[in-house]
Amino acid sequence: MNTITKGVCAPAGFRAAAAAAGIKKPGATRLDCALIVTDRPAAVAGVFTTNRVFAAPVRYCREICRAGEARAIFANSGNANACTGEHGYEDVRETARLAAGLLDCAPEAVCVCSTGVIGVPMPMDRLAQGVRACVASLSDAGGGDAARAIMTTDTVPKEAAVDVAVDGGVARIGGMAKGAGMIAPNMATMLAFLTTDAHIRPEHLQPLLRAAADWSFNCICVDNDMSTNDTLLCLANGASGTGELLPGTDAYLRFGEALTSVCGDLARALVRDGEGATKFVEIEVDGAPDDALARQVAGSIARSQLCKTAFYGQDANWGRIACAAGYAGVAFDPERVNVHIQGICVLQQGRPTMYSEAEVQARMKEHDLKVRVELQSGSGRAVFWTSDLSVDYVKINADYRT
Amino acid sequence: MNTITKGVCAPAGFRAAAAAAGIKKPGATRLDCALIVTDRPAAVAGVFTTNRVFAAPVRYCREICRAGEARAIFANSGNANACTGEHGYEDVRETARLAAGLLDCAPEAVCVCSTGVIGVPMPMDRLAQGVRACVASLSDAGGGDAARAIMTTDTVPKEAAVDVAVDGGVARIGGMAKGAGMIAPNMATMLAFLTTDAHIRPEHLQPLLRAAADWSFNCICVDNDMSTNDTLLCLANGASGTGELLPGTDAYLRFGEALTSVCGDLARALVRDGEGATKFVEIEVDGAPDDALARQVAGSIARSQLCKTAFYGQDANWGRIACAAGYAGVAFDPERVNVHIQGICVLQQGRPTMYSEAEVQARMKEHDLKVRVELQSGSGRAVFWTSDLSVDYVKINADYRT
Repeated sequence: MNTITKGVCAPAGFRAAAAAAGIKKPGATRLDCALIVTDRPAAVAGVFTTNRVFAAPVRYCREICRAGEARAIFANSGNANACTGEHGYEDVRETARLAAGLLDCAPEAVCVCSTGVIGVPMPMDRLAQGVRACVASLSDAGGGDAARAIMTTDTVPKEAAVDVAVDGGVARIGGMAKGAGMIAPNMATMLAFLTTDAHIRPEHLQPLLRAAADWSFNCICVDNDMSTNDTLLCLANGASGTGELLPGTDAYLRFGEALTSVCGDLARALVRDGEGATKFVEIEVDGAPDDALARQVAGSIARSQLCKTAFYGQDANWGRIACAAGYAGVAFDPERVNVHIQGICVLQQGRPTMYSEAEVQARMKEHDLKVRVELQSGSGRAVFWTSDLSVDYVKINADYRT
Repeated sequence: MNTITKGVCAPAGFRAAAAAAGIKKPGATRLDCALIVTDRPAAVAGVFTTNRVFAAPVRYCREICRAGEARAIFANSGNANACTGEHGYEDVRETARLAAGLLDCAPEAVCVCSTGVIGVPMPMDRLAQGVRACVASLSDAGGGDAARAIMTTDTVPKEAAVDVAVDGGVARIGGMAKGAGMIAPNMATMLAFLTTDAHIRPEHLQPLLRAAADWSFNCICVDNDMSTNDTLLCLANGASGTGELLPGTDAYLRFGEALTSVCGDLARALVRDGEGATKFVEIEVDGAPDDALARQVAGSIARSQLCKTAFYGQDANWGRIACAAGYAGVAFDPERVNVHIQGICVLQQGRPTMYSEAEVQARMKEHDLKVRVELQSGSGRAVFWTSDLSVDYVKINADYRT
């Protein structure tokens, strides 16, 4: 597996484009429409928000993923098309029909995604201009612009791509994502699109995509809220000409790992760009009864408001870390727990060590922090990535709409 | 049911006292030891932290509550006796033995509770002085001092008391509590002690106390962390001379309501004194499938970092409220949800109303906020109380140990 360039346009047969349609504000010149197109039908799989309150595009894309085939993903920023009722859903279908007409494919082959303000009707005239402008400028160098067009409070675009050896040659996987508050429902929130030229059926792609999401996007935290629009889509068009990826083969496993790797790169990029973040914190938990329970403990620490403020304060507060592990709902023996912060063991067998407070504090001045928790109650392991909770986070989110 | 005075000394047969023993810092004159004593054996019930990492006093008090009888509660602030290993547990037993000798009762009849810094051995010599000083100054006017002695980051002591008509006369319930971060594990955290002169067996008191906790202390949130020391104890000594409270009777129900009322008053006082809080927010949810699910939705909103920052920013951000309701894990139809902020309906049937942003913002300048969510999916109802997430909260908790 090697890192490559060009994001969603890295795999063969994919083109992308972006346009400025003034979705949020008429006349604005900021890119706010993105289009990804495959030159042949592709298998499609998706993972979506589990929020009961979900946006119209989520409902629509779920249906497409059930059918399993797609030709394009159109996405806009500036308006989430959430809390917009049945009319919002009709707007999604209308957008798909328009794009399908221009791309000469079935409307049911065009995924439509939105991110931005909630509760505002989509400005369909301007959106239609965006669709037309995107179709007119599709190219195999358009991935970067597309990644930029879906940004909202993000400060940098997020792209990733790798190649991976499979039977009969090399397949490529590309990706782009947006999201800065892990979720800010008025700027509803995480979108991630993957492309690949591997040959794989949708029913075989879906479990790999879900597993990749579980160990990447589901292992990050900026704040703890879950968006109404969170969408992860993957198109697989087979243009690499390599052999079909079938469950139970080595190539299938390698491809799954590569998919997880691209998702992980994008997920970590979201945390690094987290609202108000001054730290990027990796939480590693091992010795849990199993991997899923390790993730549960790691997530509990990553989400803890008190741990996150301690990271911000550069405070080696092992008490808060042990405490958050303790209420994760996982059975372990507190008297066996070790905690390491920046490589220094601060808690051993449930009791504080004679560590040097000055030394730990000095190491916590670094931007990237590492917390390791050993539960010594099994062989389960997981890693979670989180940002700190800063004064700026509160300011950003308190003042968001004003 | 009437509100009365004197806190834990309101019921007949109870005396209390406080002392300054310099637990955290030798020589300090701040009250840090509290003692509550009943002049006759009392039934005892308790509700404790569910955190896997729990302090030595929690382990000890759980055992006493299983036996069901107690004569006294001794509590100290300044040191939580948590993450202190087997030695910490021996210190608890030693404290109980000392108090029992002075009070002429069995060591197993003395509850011992601690709150304060985690991971530091208890200074037993100074604690012993505190025990002796408390025993020497017991009086039926000592409730206020005792409430003050268990404070840590609290800015005000919390007391409550009511009387309630039962068979054969009137029984009284008194209470005191501490906790300012709902939890700050290095200042580990919520303690609440109730006294009553009602006549009730421990096995009948325990379910009432648990129910009272469920609808009071379990319905509040400052931050979302759960302490290693959270303890709620109730002593019932029967000194009122009233009839025994038996399940299935009206008096039992009335007594349970009075218990919930005292717990509710104390719980709301904790939220009002929440770290960095500039708002006191009541979240009411109705129309859920049942009361427990209503509480789940209310709690999800109350805990949401984004809702809490919006309250701080005085922002009528119904999107965040609907979103937090949506990920509570409760089945409801998003298209039927109404949201009211400060009495103004801002979301109706899942879509924003034409409310005046200026009017809502003006009403949100008040200190006490009220959010009401109608799910229209059943008859379940619950109320949750929360504080806002302020810049000061982050500063307090980032700088806590430095």
